[in-house]
Amino acid sequence: MHPFATTAADSVSALGEEKLIAAIRRWLGSASPRAPFGIGDDCAVLPASRHRQLITVDPVIYPRHFNDAVPPRAVGAKLLKRNLSDLAAMGGRPTAAVLALTLDARTSLVWLEQFYRGLAACARHYRVPIVGGDIAQADGTVAASLTLLGAAAGPRVITRTGARRSDWIYVTGELGASLPTRHHVTFTPRLPEGAWLARQPAVRAMMDLSDGLAKDLHALTPPRSAPALAAAALPLRRGADLRAALTDGEDYELVFALAARTDREKFARAWHRAFPRVRLSCLGRFVAAGALPAGALPLAHYRGYEHLQP
Amino acid sequence: MHPFATTAADSVSALGEEKLIAAIRRWLGSASPRAPFGIGDDCAVLPASRHRQLITVDPVIYPRHFNDAVPPRAVGAKLLKRNLSDLAAMGGRPTAAVLALTLDARTSLVWLEQFYRGLAACARHYRVPIVGGDIAQADGTVAASLTLLGAAAGPRVITRTGARRSDWIYVTGELGASLPTRHHVTFTPRLPEGAWLARQPAVRAMMDLSDGLAKDLHALTPPRSAPALAAAALPLRRGADLRAALTDGEDYELVFALAARTDREKFARAWHRAFPRVRLSCLGRFVAAGALPAGALPLAHYRGYEHLQP
Repeated sequence: MHPFATTAADSVSALGEEKLIAAIRRWLGSASPRAPFGIGDDCAVLPASRHRQLITVDPVIYPRHFNDAVPPRAVGAKLLKRNLSDLAAMGGRPTAAVLALTLDARTSLVWLEQFYRGLAACARHYRVPIVGGDIAQADGTVAASLTLLGAAAGPRVITRTGARRSDWIYVTGELGASLPTRHHVTFTPRLPEGAWLARQPAVRAMMDLSDGLAKDLHALTPPRSAPALAAAALPLRRGADLRAALTDGEDYELVFALAARTDREKFARAWHRAFPRVRLSCLGRFVAAGALPAGALPLAHYRGYEHLQP
Repeated sequence: MHPFATTAADSVSALGEEKLIAAIRRWLGSASPRAPFGIGDDCAVLPASRHRQLITVDPVIYPRHFNDAVPPRAVGAKLLKRNLSDLAAMGGRPTAAVLALTLDARTSLVWLEQFYRGLAACARHYRVPIVGGDIAQADGTVAASLTLLGAAAGPRVITRTGARRSDWIYVTGELGASLPTRHHVTFTPRLPEGAWLARQPAVRAMMDLSDGLAKDLHALTPPRSAPALAAAALPLRRGADLRAALTDGEDYELVFALAARTDREKFARAWHRAFPRVRLSCLGRFVAAGALPAGALPLAHYRGYEHLQP
């Protein structure tokens, strides 16, 4: 569905600011509490937090992160799920979200209602109150940026740093072909998996995959080391080849480093008891830079999604 | 300064994503802590909070909130100060911020560096760590959305609701002509004033002025009531007439309701001891709707800034 209305009567400008905000409250429904704990005051009020908190921000922008082929409900849900995936990667659970919208005055009211209803349904499912937001106008733009606040789900917050040479490299789920399979909108953020992994002391570092394994894995790699991956170990999504699995991006899976001396069979059994339907793959391990074994994937030949290209 | 570079070599696309993020860290300097407490992981980690928290989000978008005449340093500072003003209006103090940027690949590196240095200087001044962010690409766009997290500065969070009929209406500072006087970039968010006012039990409700008093005051007005304002009481900024003071917007002043039975002379003396250089004006009071006294300003004849106009 195209986000711009064909007639002015069907656009946000026909409604005007005050009525639009009232409509947004209606569309969000129980996903947005009343002011001052939700939309309607200068700030939203959040409870005190006994635990360390997490915060992340990610947008969806037309036509970069969605196009006319993606239903607006799915766009709203994707916006929240992208942020939930970042939270999952630190072992967190969500507590609240705020939304900044930038809209052309021609934005279709039907499109916007469906976007909000998709966001609201997803917010209710994951129990994330949408507590505030802002709407600004900019010609030619339909963009939404969501800031997600969370808390550590357990005693540990897990970060991208901490992997050591010889650690094993694991990935959840399958990789590649996110766009043709619609995985980029249908994915489930790995929240319970991330919280579980953060409770395992053998898991040293973790991140989520958004720009493709070939690019993202750099951030997990310890100094003076390199990932030695076995091509055959890569879990390919249907329709994906090796290059797709390494470079397509939008996998929203977790990649993590497991301490070298871990009993890997026991770890895999515990995983499958906890998540019987989620594939877990050991892709290889970190080795000394320049000491890649024969047959290891030449990752430098693959490039993940590069932002800010002309 | 124009935000787009004239040659590709001077644009963000010349640097590429990885080097750009490294440059941003350098530009932010001490305003941004190291990961996981700042930029560089899937989420930023924030400490637990013993107090209730506040959250708000506001953008700056080219050419709507700034144009080529506004130095990029001032744009960066304005972005943070707009959000600080929302926090001031609830009696809060800032704790952390995240920034979502949307940039055309042609965005000038010099412009962007100055924007970040202006933001960083302002963040250091107000002791707000910039803990995270995101950069996305969209053709023709230079926009930044900042989410500000804060905490109540005292025991009370003050909201827009709570004013009663007969309460007095006060405003800080001066109103109108924000654009020609450059007040819209040079203003100081009323943080100490907001915190002080939130500690006065006689202050029943408060908000900041962004779209002009004529429009914004509706949100403070109790049910079945109307504000009866004396035109002569409006504190005009130099160059502003009555209409400008009521409708220009971007005042970033605080408007609040003071309980009817307050000793107003004592209140004014306490204010001037606390803030000897900040003007405080009593504009009038809330009366029963339909019972406006003769000579009261006919606010319905004035319209503040309306968002989302075609």
